This record gives sequence, structure tokens and C-alpha cells, in this order.
Amino acid sequence: MEYYSSHISNLIEQLSRLPGIGVKSAQRLAFHIMNLPKEEVNLLASSMTQAREKIQYCKSCFTLTDEEFCPICRNLRRDQNQIMVVENPRDLAAYEKTGKYEGVYHVLHGAISPMLGIGPDEIRLKELMQRLQSQEVQEVIIATNSSLEGETTAMYISKLVKPTGIKVTRIASGVPVGGDLEYIDEVTLLRALEGRVEL
Amino acid sequence: MEYYSSHISNLIEQLSRLPGIGVKSAQRLAFHIMNLPKEEVNLLASSMTQAREKIQYCKSCFTLTDEEFCPICRNLRRDQNQIMVVENPRDLAAYEKTGKYEGVYHVLHGAISPMLGIGPDEIRLKELMQRLQSQEVQEVIIATNSSLEGETTAMYISKLVKPTGIKVTRIASGVPVGGDLEYIDEVTLLRALEGRVEL
Repeated sequence: MEYYSSHISNLIEQLSRLPGIGVKSAQRLAFHIMNLPKEEVNLLASSMTQAREKIQYCKSCFTLTDEEFCPICRNLRRDQNQIMVVENPRDLAAYEKTGKYEGVYHVLHGAISPMLGIGPDEIRLKELMQRLQSQEVQEVIIATNSSLEGETTAMYISKLVKPTGIKVTRIASGVPVGGDLEYIDEVTLLRALEGRVEL
Repeated sequence: MEYYSSHISNLIEQLSRLPGIGVKSAQRLAFHIMNLPKEEVNLLASSMTQAREKIQYCKSCFTLTDEEFCPICRNLRRDQNQIMVVENPRDLAAYEKTGKYEGVYHVLHGAISPMLGIGPDEIRLKELMQRLQSQEVQEVIIATNSSLEGETTAMYISKLVKPTGIKVTRIASGVPVGGDLEYIDEVTLLRALEGRVEL
């Protein structure tokens, strides 16, 4: 791309490394950025570095946050006895948008996948079990995706938790098979929550 | 989005302002960025601010570059007597990729659009006319898009340039190479028929 200046080529290359952004989109974004006022570009750039700088895992639920405990775990109105287990923070966000779930979460940061070589130790499962021992919990709602990995993870968690006597439920398969939670509409998400069955 | 930390919410908001990036994509990008090593995030951020900082218009063809004159205008092997007029630097890049065009360019940064209130003074037309007066030019090839705005701009430029005696041409429009006739719109089919050449 020597017909672009080196700085633009560099920016296009950096942008095209982002997920879902090909070379064409990266070009489009780069030229858009070149046309923004300098202050806005600085704001965009610093929002990235600052967020990345401050980010940490919530010490209770392990979602990404910028304080020791996330806003949901700190919220005294949330039911600490009910823990919804999700694969990642985007899935947490998807359930939060329904506005109807009043418990707290546990973010695994992945799912068990023999194909990709991701075992139970690679996700935040140990932390979930520690949490169940150290605090009083009445129900664990497994809301992993309805994919092969998600189902495998759900079965695995269910087997781990059941001996403790804590109730384990799985969100209903109102969620389409193979579907990714973050792209599903709120009504379906709620239907799945209501229809959860004990495992 | 108070269930995200303020820094993540801020980043998502900044990203979702970019063209073609909705809230869902912005979320996905933000969490991808949160999972990158800090150094890579700093690299991405600084590639934006640096490119924006250094960017300027080429003093000859007005494409975006980081020096006084762009690499194409500086290249002595390029034919300075042939100027291809394009709407934006991406269109310039599209023709450069063919590797066959040996002339230089003129980047308008837009097209005339009565609908959007963009007149001839809002694009780099005056600069084109000044260029035609100050340097010897044999041909102006108009390669604006084949949209309403692009055609309007082409007609306008043609009327301006013709009195100077310089040859004005327009890139052909017709059926794309490899294109299947049954999937091509009627306007293009008619244009291809009108533009037929003797074999």
C-alpha cells in the first residue's frame, strides 16, 4: 500500500487486525478517522488506552470492571443468593438489558472446548466453586450458550455443583440451538429465563 | 450501560460513533481490545493519533499523505500530463491496485450533490482548474463514481475543462468483467448497450 503514506498504511494495518474488520473496512475507518477533528481522535485513542489501563476482573463475579468489585456485585438490592453463570461479559450485558434478573453473575471467560483444547481449568470454574463454599447460595443458573461448548460446560458445572446440595438450573432452550446470547432479542432471553428447568 | 464500568462504556460509545459500527460491534471490539496486551492497545491508539497528527493534503493532487507531496506525485516515472479525477483517496487506491495506470490523480474529496447541499465550491474543483492552468496537461480522465452525484460532477467538470482545449474523457460504464447479465440492473445493461464498441 505504498500509494498511501506510511502513517495511513500503518493505521489501516492496525485496524484490520481487529475482529470482523477486513482491509476494506479498515481503509474506510482510517479515512474517516483522518477526517475527524484532532481532539476527537485523541479522545478515541485515549478511551482505548485508559479502559485497557484500568480494566480488572471483579473480585467476586470476574466480569471486567475498573474497580475492585463491579457495580452489580456492589449493588445491595441484587439477590446474592442467585448466581447466573455466563461465558463472557457480553452475555452478562445481554441479560442485564432485560432489566428483570435480580440476582448476581459469575463470568467464566470461556467455555469448555475439547476441540480448542480449553479444559475446566482454563475458565473461571474453580473461582465459582470457591464462591459457592464461602457464601450462601440458593441457586446456580447456568446461562452458557446453547452451543456444543456451552452445553458441555453446563453439564460439567451441574455435576460439580449438585453434590453441594445447591439447586442448579439451566436457562430453557427457547434460545435457538447454535445461537449466541448477545444477538438474541430480550423477549426470547426472558422466555428462556422463565422456562429454566432443574438439572 | 451502567452494568459496564465507566471506562468500558466510554470506549463502547466512542467506537459506536465510527461509520458502520453499531453498538453490538462496538461491544465486541471493546472486549477484544480489553483482552489485548497493553502494548498492542497503545500501538493501535498511537497509530490513530500519529496518523491524524501528520496527515495533510498533497499540495498537487490533494490526496491524504504525510509529506508535502504524495508518493505518486513525487514519482518521476508517472505521466504528469494525464490526470485522473477521483472522488476520494479510496478510489485512488482502487485504481492504483490495478497497477496499470501511469498518470497522476486529482482527489476531489466529495462529489456535487444538490440533495446534500454540496456545491462545486465544497469539493477540490477550483484546485483542479488552477492545476490545469499552471501545468501542461493533455488529458483529464473523469473517474467519479457512476452514481447520480458522480455523473453530475463528471458533467460539471467536463463543461469547465472543455473550453481550455484539454481532452476530457470519462471511464466507461457497463457490465462488470465476470458479471452475469441476469443479475445486472437495467440501467447498467442499457448503458452497456449504448457504449458498445465495434469489434
